[in-house]
Amino acid sequence: MGSFRDNLRKIEPYVPGEQPDLPDMIKLKTNENPYPPTPKVREVLDTYAEDKLRLYPDPKSEALVKAIAEINGISEEQVFVGVGSDDVLAIAFMTFFHSKKPVLFPDITYSFYDVWAELFRIPYEQIPLNDDFDMVPSDYYKENGGIVIANPNAPTGVYQGISVLEDIIEHNRDVAVIIDEAYVDFSEEGTALELIKKYDNVLIVQTYSKSRSLAGMRIGHAMGGKELIQAMNDVRFSFNSYPMTRLSVEIGAAAIKDQAYFEETRKKVIATREWTKKELARMGFTFRDSMTNFIFAKHETVPAEEIFERLREKHIFVRHFKKPRISDYLRISIGTDEEMERFAEETKKIIETKKIIEAKKIIKPRES
Amino acid sequence: MGSFRDNLRKIEPYVPGEQPDLPDMIKLKTNENPYPPTPKVREVLDTYAEDKLRLYPDPKSEALVKAIAEINGISEEQVFVGVGSDDVLAIAFMTFFHSKKPVLFPDITYSFYDVWAELFRIPYEQIPLNDDFDMVPSDYYKENGGIVIANPNAPTGVYQGISVLEDIIEHNRDVAVIIDEAYVDFSEEGTALELIKKYDNVLIVQTYSKSRSLAGMRIGHAMGGKELIQAMNDVRFSFNSYPMTRLSVEIGAAAIKDQAYFEETRKKVIATREWTKKELARMGFTFRDSMTNFIFAKHETVPAEEIFERLREKHIFVRHFKKPRISDYLRISIGTDEEMERFAEETKKIIETKKIIEAKKIIKPRES
Repeated sequence: MGSFRDNLRKIEPYVPGEQPDLPDMIKLKTNENPYPPTPKVREVLDTYAEDKLRLYPDPKSEALVKAIAEINGISEEQVFVGVGSDDVLAIAFMTFFHSKKPVLFPDITYSFYDVWAELFRIPYEQIPLNDDFDMVPSDYYKENGGIVIANPNAPTGVYQGISVLEDIIEHNRDVAVIIDEAYVDFSEEGTALELIKKYDNVLIVQTYSKSRSLAGMRIGHAMGGKELIQAMNDVRFSFNSYPMTRLSVEIGAAAIKDQAYFEETRKKVIATREWTKKELARMGFTFRDSMTNFIFAKHETVPAEEIFERLREKHIFVRHFKKPRISDYLRISIGTDEEMERFAEETKKIIETKKIIEAKKIIKPRES
Repeated sequence: MGSFRDNLRKIEPYVPGEQPDLPDMIKLKTNENPYPPTPKVREVLDTYAEDKLRLYPDPKSEALVKAIAEINGISEEQVFVGVGSDDVLAIAFMTFFHSKKPVLFPDITYSFYDVWAELFRIPYEQIPLNDDFDMVPSDYYKENGGIVIANPNAPTGVYQGISVLEDIIEHNRDVAVIIDEAYVDFSEEGTALELIKKYDNVLIVQTYSKSRSLAGMRIGHAMGGKELIQAMNDVRFSFNSYPMTRLSVEIGAAAIKDQAYFEETRKKVIATREWTKKELARMGFTFRDSMTNFIFAKHETVPAEEIFERLREKHIFVRHFKKPRISDYLRISIGTDEEMERFAEETKKIIETKKIIEAKKIIKPRES
């Protein structure tokens, strides 16, 4: 006799990262926004008639969809909303990548792309970035089942100009091309949204977890041609007709309407990032010019893992990936000015201490 | 050249049901609870520090999982939470039904089971209920890839005794058996939770949308053996690491802890249902003894569609399914006493009017 175990979908168990919760800690490891969401969120919480929670949400999340369409100057039929951009991307993978040809994405990029491909049995090929972490457009001039580009990319922080994206899209009019813009609000050139007006196979995905300070509310959206959005909605409604809570819809709409607050916090994060870049460079770190709310940096002499561990002892948590090609790097989220000052101070100490130890080692052999 | 359209997952587009929103309407079509959620929900909204929304939620939703485990006397490893029971069930389908043999469920049952099976390419077979809408356990004594039972069933309202479920489980120890208890809190015999202690292949799924008055917050949970729950979490974390909003976790935990309020509203709904049953019987309706917050009833002479349309004109919305075997029935959700009194009054009028018209028709031929 068999067992229910024979029919289980075998998944490489994902272990959620360490979630330290220490009173004095500085958490620079999950790319959260250091500033609170718009004060309009407090208004929503204070005034929402809780009796309405007994009713199902609007399956179309119209209050939110409408706000997104208005801010972006597109129609409501061009907007899809989901439970964070992870949910939006997973639905997009399920909807668009139904080919036997491999879906293409960079070898160094958001770590969920290959996980979703495995989960939905989508063949895929990871295309190496060049040594500067740039995409090579001509590598994407071949038969494929679809393309996914994070821009700016994570964890590298590198932004590919819109002309680079357009080059790839021009050579791939026959498949869906997803541009994941989770971090785009921290870039100079900004969104590639204009491309959806020119190409009916392009989908732009954004999140409220970074620039809108709402990681805890799980809101994301996609924008694209009506056909793409309709196909995603068809899959979505087959899966779960009411994915968004009533409060997510209200809070998301309040956040996207408050553009003034958004601009203010976005600029503060960018200013702190630019300050941090200078500090890091001064300490001997190298990095590509980050266009995100994190910096992906490598030190000229001290190994990343060592800095990571020493910072951890000081309750400063950054991210280190034990993966090929990037194990020499640290991903440092941008916190408040105060947090980054403390981070810089402690990092300097770690590097100085290391230099002294190394210097002693060099001196020692001479002595012996 | 191909088109991105060639790679789209073809889904029968699901059209969300009509969502009437009229000031004087009585909505008895979506099985929502007529009473507000526990007053503790207001407390959560008033006191939640909105600054925390900038942070990702706890991926394990521990505050909620812990509350569920405590109330049910099980361990936290036996609890899985999701975005409504639809999300929980969809993940369970993806996780457990990975066989080439068909998954079995009744021909008349919750309308999403076949949709998920189609979406995830799971073979399935719909087993006819008998003419009384009861399951025939021996029909499930055959090779299969898993079993899904809604108990009480929707839209029939019929509750199968736990001994019936156990009979089916005893004959199916080699596959996962899902018991969907969306409506169980309105039944007399209650949950089959005890079965998870005896059988490691049984999963119990429940929702906060009905008896907890929280359809708008999208909360559901599953309880079962640690192996089943672990496998679901592995799939879940591959899909979306943070499915629950921070507010869903807090509100869900507050709701499940307030057992006194839960008992009070549950009993009110049951009392109104029993009153409504008597009224319906008096009007010439027949129905199985509903154990849910709706009644699935058929009139002896007036067609269901006609009653449905006449009620609609009065802004009373019930549910009618144009499906084989059940097109003679109406599914009437239980509202407040006042709502059900108005429903009964209008339904009586419709039936009386129809009787007069029919009587005239019978007299007419004699006159000619």
